[in-house]
Amino acid sequence: MFDEIHEECGVFGAYHIQNAAAITYYGLHTLQHRGQEASGIAVGEGAKIQVRKGKGLTIDVFTREKLEQMPGKVAVGHVRYSTAGGQENANIQPIVARGRVHDVAIVHNGQIVNEKELRIELEEAGCIFQGTSDSEIVLHMIQKEQGTMRERVMKTARKLVGAFSILVLCEDAIYAIRDQKGLRPLSYAKMQDGYVIGSETCAFEVLGLYTHTDVKPGELVEFKDGIVRRFDYEPAGETHLCAMEYIYFARPDSVIENLNVHRFRKETGRLLALRDDVEADIVIGVPDSSLSAAIGYAEASGIPFETGLVKNRFVGRTFIQPTQALRDRGVRMKLSAIGPIVAGKSVVMIDDSIVRGTTSRRIVRLLKDAGAREVHVRIASPVITSPCFYGVDTSTKEELIGARMDEAAICEAIEADSLRFMSIDDLKAAAGGVGLCTACFDGSYCTDLYSYGEKL
Amino acid sequence: MFDEIHEECGVFGAYHIQNAAAITYYGLHTLQHRGQEASGIAVGEGAKIQVRKGKGLTIDVFTREKLEQMPGKVAVGHVRYSTAGGQENANIQPIVARGRVHDVAIVHNGQIVNEKELRIELEEAGCIFQGTSDSEIVLHMIQKEQGTMRERVMKTARKLVGAFSILVLCEDAIYAIRDQKGLRPLSYAKMQDGYVIGSETCAFEVLGLYTHTDVKPGELVEFKDGIVRRFDYEPAGETHLCAMEYIYFARPDSVIENLNVHRFRKETGRLLALRDDVEADIVIGVPDSSLSAAIGYAEASGIPFETGLVKNRFVGRTFIQPTQALRDRGVRMKLSAIGPIVAGKSVVMIDDSIVRGTTSRRIVRLLKDAGAREVHVRIASPVITSPCFYGVDTSTKEELIGARMDEAAICEAIEADSLRFMSIDDLKAAAGGVGLCTACFDGSYCTDLYSYGEKL
Amino acid sequence: MFDEIHEECGVFGAYHIQNAAAITYYGLHTLQHRGQEASGIAVGEGAKIQVRKGKGLTIDVFTREKLEQMPGKVAVGHVRYSTAGGQENANIQPIVARGRVHDVAIVHNGQIVNEKELRIELEEAGCIFQGTSDSEIVLHMIQKEQGTMRERVMKTARKLVGAFSILVLCEDAIYAIRDQKGLRPLSYAKMQDGYVIGSETCAFEVLGLYTHTDVKPGELVEFKDGIVRRFDYEPAGETHLCAMEYIYFARPDSVIENLNVHRFRKETGRLLALRDDVEADIVIGVPDSSLSAAIGYAEASGIPFETGLVKNRFVGRTFIQPTQALRDRGVRMKLSAIGPIVAGKSVVMIDDSIVRGTTSRRIVRLLKDAGAREVHVRIASPVITSPCFYGVDTSTKEELIGARMDEAAICEAIEADSLRFMSIDDLKAAAGGVGLCTACFDGSYCTDLYSYGEKL
Amino acid sequence: MFDEIHEECGVFGAYHIQNAAAITYYGLHTLQHRGQEASGIAVGEGAKIQVRKGKGLTIDVFTREKLEQMPGKVAVGHVRYSTAGGQENANIQPIVARGRVHDVAIVHNGQIVNEKELRIELEEAGCIFQGTSDSEIVLHMIQKEQGTMRERVMKTARKLVGAFSILVLCEDAIYAIRDQKGLRPLSYAKMQDGYVIGSETCAFEVLGLYTHTDVKPGELVEFKDGIVRRFDYEPAGETHLCAMEYIYFARPDSVIENLNVHRFRKETGRLLALRDDVEADIVIGVPDSSLSAAIGYAEASGIPFETGLVKNRFVGRTFIQPTQALRDRGVRMKLSAIGPIVAGKSVVMIDDSIVRGTTSRRIVRLLKDAGAREVHVRIASPVITSPCFYGVDTSTKEELIGARMDEAAICEAIEADSLRFMSIDDLKAAAGGVGLCTACFDGSYCTDLYSYGEKL
Repeated sequence: MFDEIHEECGVFGAYHIQNAAAITYYGLHTLQHRGQEASGIAVGEGAKIQVRKGKGLTIDVFTREKLEQMPGKVAVGHVRYSTAGGQENANIQPIVARGRVHDVAIVHNGQIVNEKELRIELEEAGCIFQGTSDSEIVLHMIQKEQGTMRERVMKTARKLVGAFSILVLCEDAIYAIRDQKGLRPLSYAKMQDGYVIGSETCAFEVLGLYTHTDVKPGELVEFKDGIVRRFDYEPAGETHLCAMEYIYFARPDSVIENLNVHRFRKETGRLLALRDDVEADIVIGVPDSSLSAAIGYAEASGIPFETGLVKNRFVGRTFIQPTQALRDRGVRMKLSAIGPIVAGKSVVMIDDSIVRGTTSRRIVRLLKDAGAREVHVRIASPVITSPCFYGVDTSTKEELIGARMDEAAICEAIEADSLRFMSIDDLKAAAGGVGLCTACFDGSYCTDLYSYGEKL
Repeated sequence: MFDEIHEECGVFGAYHIQNAAAITYYGLHTLQHRGQEASGIAVGEGAKIQVRKGKGLTIDVFTREKLEQMPGKVAVGHVRYSTAGGQENANIQPIVARGRVHDVAIVHNGQIVNEKELRIELEEAGCIFQGTSDSEIVLHMIQKEQGTMRERVMKTARKLVGAFSILVLCEDAIYAIRDQKGLRPLSYAKMQDGYVIGSETCAFEVLGLYTHTDVKPGELVEFKDGIVRRFDYEPAGETHLCAMEYIYFARPDSVIENLNVHRFRKETGRLLALRDDVEADIVIGVPDSSLSAAIGYAEASGIPFETGLVKNRFVGRTFIQPTQALRDRGVRMKLSAIGPIVAGKSVVMIDDSIVRGTTSRRIVRLLKDAGAREVHVRIASPVITSPCFYGVDTSTKEELIGARMDEAAICEAIEADSLRFMSIDDLKAAAGGVGLCTACFDGSYCTDLYSYGEKL
Repeated sequence: MFDEIHEECGVFGAYHIQNAAAITYYGLHTLQHRGQEASGIAVGEGAKIQVRKGKGLTIDVFTREKLEQMPGKVAVGHVRYSTAGGQENANIQPIVARGRVHDVAIVHNGQIVNEKELRIELEEAGCIFQGTSDSEIVLHMIQKEQGTMRERVMKTARKLVGAFSILVLCEDAIYAIRDQKGLRPLSYAKMQDGYVIGSETCAFEVLGLYTHTDVKPGELVEFKDGIVRRFDYEPAGETHLCAMEYIYFARPDSVIENLNVHRFRKETGRLLALRDDVEADIVIGVPDSSLSAAIGYAEASGIPFETGLVKNRFVGRTFIQPTQALRDRGVRMKLSAIGPIVAGKSVVMIDDSIVRGTTSRRIVRLLKDAGAREVHVRIASPVITSPCFYGVDTSTKEELIGARMDEAAICEAIEADSLRFMSIDDLKAAAGGVGLCTACFDGSYCTDLYSYGEKL
Repeated sequence: MFDEIHEECGVFGAYHIQNAAAITYYGLHTLQHRGQEASGIAVGEGAKIQVRKGKGLTIDVFTREKLEQMPGKVAVGHVRYSTAGGQENANIQPIVARGRVHDVAIVHNGQIVNEKELRIELEEAGCIFQGTSDSEIVLHMIQKEQGTMRERVMKTARKLVGAFSILVLCEDAIYAIRDQKGLRPLSYAKMQDGYVIGSETCAFEVLGLYTHTDVKPGELVEFKDGIVRRFDYEPAGETHLCAMEYIYFARPDSVIENLNVHRFRKETGRLLALRDDVEADIVIGVPDSSLSAAIGYAEASGIPFETGLVKNRFVGRTFIQPTQALRDRGVRMKLSAIGPIVAGKSVVMIDDSIVRGTTSRRIVRLLKDAGAREVHVRIASPVITSPCFYGVDTSTKEELIGARMDEAAICEAIEADSLRFMSIDDLKAAAGGVGLCTACFDGSYCTDLYSYGEKL
């Protein structure tokens, strides 16, 4: 879908490791694909926590000098994609509570669906909020609970409904919690005398760590006193990992629930090919996220895999459209067709998903303008028919082309010669034994939606 | 070779087109892979030329506001990779001469090998130089010649030896010259009532232009009075296009001398496979430049093409190595192996070239650390044995591993299980009828080298 | 004392005025002498409040574009000098609480001396703090109280001990409170259909407003429904305006408690002269704050007023001391003597105060190096012997030269030929009927000091 | 005249001193009042010259790190106010010529009036210009001459007509030349084993140097081989120092031609008072440049000196006028009246000069709005009737109110109760024996004007 949907965050933590801030910097940089709008690191030394954060990529927010001013062996960090409330700096994570006895820092990936209800309850109890993020709510809740920090985090976790992978830093310890459905990924790995914790395993491999453990749905993992303790704050239910993590968000080298992302994508391509009978000359993928599926399709179909589209590596947020007349060329600034490869050819174009359909139509036109004879679009996921309330920015139901049209109508809208989506069953098959949340495809949300349900 | 060698520049021009500066901005953005250190645009209105330039990517140097302040229908622009003399702003192009009668602006891709001799001659004639770039020399030479601007450019071109694709902007006209050997590419395309000129054709396609004409070696093309006039300033000799343009620099969607770059690279992969007998499980390419060759190798060998390496899309110049202990992890920040794909496998790893060998060794280690059983390195170009004096920054002869070791020794140095380079004959075969400069492989420079010869 | 002590803040508000943010920008710019480290503006539209803030001068933090994006007719703003806790952005004001029903913004000048006790109480009630400023405490307290916003602000004000001039913005209304002792100034003026409120009246005059009303000690002024309502939240006691406001902080064109600052300073100069019998050739003042006193001294003594010291207008925070050898020239970068004026002369040098004494010694040396025969230092305020806990950064008691030495010893330490301070009685006389806090001179603090008392 | 006219530059050099770049940084910072738009330093080590320059104040352009990267014992620097041609970086000084044998750097204060003629001559000889500054012309001329560097600079100096104080840096030597009329000041002082050279002596005093020597009109001073050699490149004529240097540009602590600037200004005030019979309550000066004259006037007239106007110390170039309605308040952002001081008073307001008259009218209104009963404007210089071509930006003849109106009409235009200018004779008397250029007052230009004469 190329730039149309966004996941909101990545989290990373380093426990009991020299230069924890620098290690976290590496981790966040590797998780940068999960969010490019803002970046922050909090580092703890005893009761005190120091935090630095700002808008932009991790490599822009932090300098070597700044990192050197952040000593400490425990740190948590965050990268985020800005959402509606994101204009103001108050929402950039980590969020830190300054306390008389100790500070607490929190980073969060996901979305709490009962946030409105929790916020009202807290406000009525006299809490004030400086930002609009649900992470601030969690911080208040932890503060209000009684007991040890572990107990307070556990009690808080039980009250949260929705998607969350949260790290809490306090007094040289880190508490990691993952929502009961396991909607967002969260894993940890041993490093030297300590541990690193992160949204995706790719962040471990850059540190030379090749084995890891997943935080289970409904689990709290405490990193404290140099050791790891695992607790079920809720009885483990069935896993409902967000399907989009496999389809689009995660880096192909990451492993989630023991399944490699690239391998999953290749399998979706293979399954698409099995159900297909199109006669074509070449198979191409929309870079970068659809290349794996295209390779799988090519292998299974016997149609040669080709590089038909090239992505401009230097596109950033700052790209401008200087003149109105040129504005419709926007997509071309990001993506170009290789004329000599596609000209005169019948092309199978694999894309990972279709959201609004406008980008798909532009890419089809791009290929046709470059001389492609036929463009057969194959989508390595089912039709998106429902909005996501678990942290994916898929826009409203009205904007989802799959909520308004059937396959044939979408095919016409995007000006393709043919179009096929993957079935939900095939998607599940590709995931093997991993339970998926497929709410955006079939509307079956795995939690109560609270006030979000009104948006349906 | 992943980040080890650099070409110095890309040029772009827009003639007789509304918002020429904005069009040039698009063009430069698409040529950004040819240079990321600095960017500049000069736009002419009658006798006057306005110039803006600065360090950084095109999208960072220019804002919409700045472009709107640059009206005019004729413009030239430049992206560059900084070289030794590049610390000072005086070397950022375009370079403009302010004249009583009219201004002149120049942009240049390549390297003039008789620059020292020309500079001495000009200095002795009383010229002063504010920078160290050879572009300033060309500007002085044009100014010193007699006759019309076309005549002056032609006379100047005849005296230049080396690699150059130069655009000269003066009084609403653009003069494009390409060196007699055609070492650097240069093409133009019709757009509306005018023309665009650029180092690579990918810059035309983003504007929706699918046909183009190459400036021939030894040719001057004059864009003036609304039309194009072509002149041979020298009798056309044999073309010696820089082989590295096909192998590494150019974008895969570009077409040089009627040969698509991706297609060339696939053919090198195919030829590598034909000469090979290795038994392996998968073929992978080093992203991004070696993927085409890897696809070609896979097709010809029947060994499956896989995605074994992932590149961090957010790496920039500003990436820091916060701690000494982590410094050797540098390459991992840029490139990661997909463990589940390569683990236990015998891998054919296609890279486009080897310069110093250090990066190759790191990538081999990366794959081994991720569990690869065997890594067979195949290089889609011959051994680099000689430095380049035509605008490619391949470091000195001492640093070239291919100048010091034979294939077996290099194989050992990079810790590969086997290593094969492509033969020069196969390289030439892949280029079809296009004459190549292969000086870096065989030391046969296609021009006199003047003072540069001392470096051999 | 030239750059040795700092007041921490200035506040400004605009009520029921078009472009309230722009008006506040003007006001803050005029109050910039009260704080140069950070600047911020919150603007309200109905229940919602938008806030922008950052490090640096008001003119650097805000651009025209940013101000245009802040529509609304009610705004409050803040300039601050950073204190120890000031490294982190969380302390930059305004601080805003996001509420379900409405947002609340607060700006604060002064210091709450029972902040530690209040903070503990709030924390124990489950509040979390994101910064270390006492403004955040006030925001929590308001939120915790019951009743209308006016009632909640009043109840909060009654619990605060110390120095505060606070503006609270909520639902298109502004609530202004001044501490019971009137330690910090706060006034308002009618502007068009609305009002402006600010720390000093100079901020009104730049808007063409020449009449104003002081918020009284212990008063709450409510700007709501288009009108002003005044309430005594505490019975008015005796005023204890910080003497340093007159002596050093305030701009000479400001009027506090019906007394013009320049006039006060002239009177101190006059009184110094009356008590003096030194024979000298010229009177000079240390720019800028001591010029008024020097004029007063000259008038009363009959010794001619001269310009003997020149201040570099372009000194900023960013001034660097490039080499160690030159570091002791620091003061010269800021202040220079006019050699031809002072050479061979017996000089009366008026300064407003002495804190650590190091700057005074440097200035005396500067004058002697420039040829002054004698330098008689006269200080237009009494000896500072005690630290301030009401928002003035006079460092600790140990650093105060007046706490360690008597007049004769200080005279020797600063290498002056003679030295006289003003008596506390004369200081009070200069203030006419205005009651002053003179705690820094005589240690008689006008409030209980709570935990701050331990620092004595 | 408060911000209405501008001198274009200040120059500084350091010869044979450790950390010459850092010393030059100090010097430029002290000369910052002569130009705030751009700043640059060139430092030499043997034949090589390193240059750094940029837009903004010296303290913003240079960091400690940058200065540390500029070793060398010889440096020249420049601060400038941007003129029409100033938009482009090519005009920021120092301008450096890169040569095979050695580099040459130049800085220049003043204006060459035969620049057009010289430029044409050079262009016809084949020179190219990258900027529009006359400094680049001088560099070309030096390069074209024959002989030793000293001979070349002398031959060049003889051909230049107009105002210039130029420093040339080459091979560890500095050549300082001052125009034959001495229009711009230039002095040097011994420092350690070397020398510093600069536009004003205030730059020496911050370095602790209290004695200096003026470069004479028509003189070249060579700093080479550790010693100073002085040469008359032209027979010395009568000095014509720009009167505006004394009246407005120079810092009050500077000494030019043995006359202190503050003393000169006081004397103009005294002479104004002697010729005056106005009955008034107080005398005030427009800060900062008119305060000295106001003190002189007060002393001579017996009318008390007062502080009636306050300047905002934090006004910078970036100050914005956020709303149209508020735009006419612009001057108030920079200057405020002290109401309690001027209210009900008859005020003598001393200003240094009147250019367009608009600022004077605003200040008169400011005082009246603040309650002044009468405002009697006294100008400490004669009526400006003619444009300046020697480096002062007084705008065109049409804009000069003194070229269109007589004293009475100007008085009415600026809404003053009375107005008196100083006579040219009194101005000359104030300067004592120093010969002045008074062209802007009487149109008698001290050189041929060449093409500039057409603008009269």
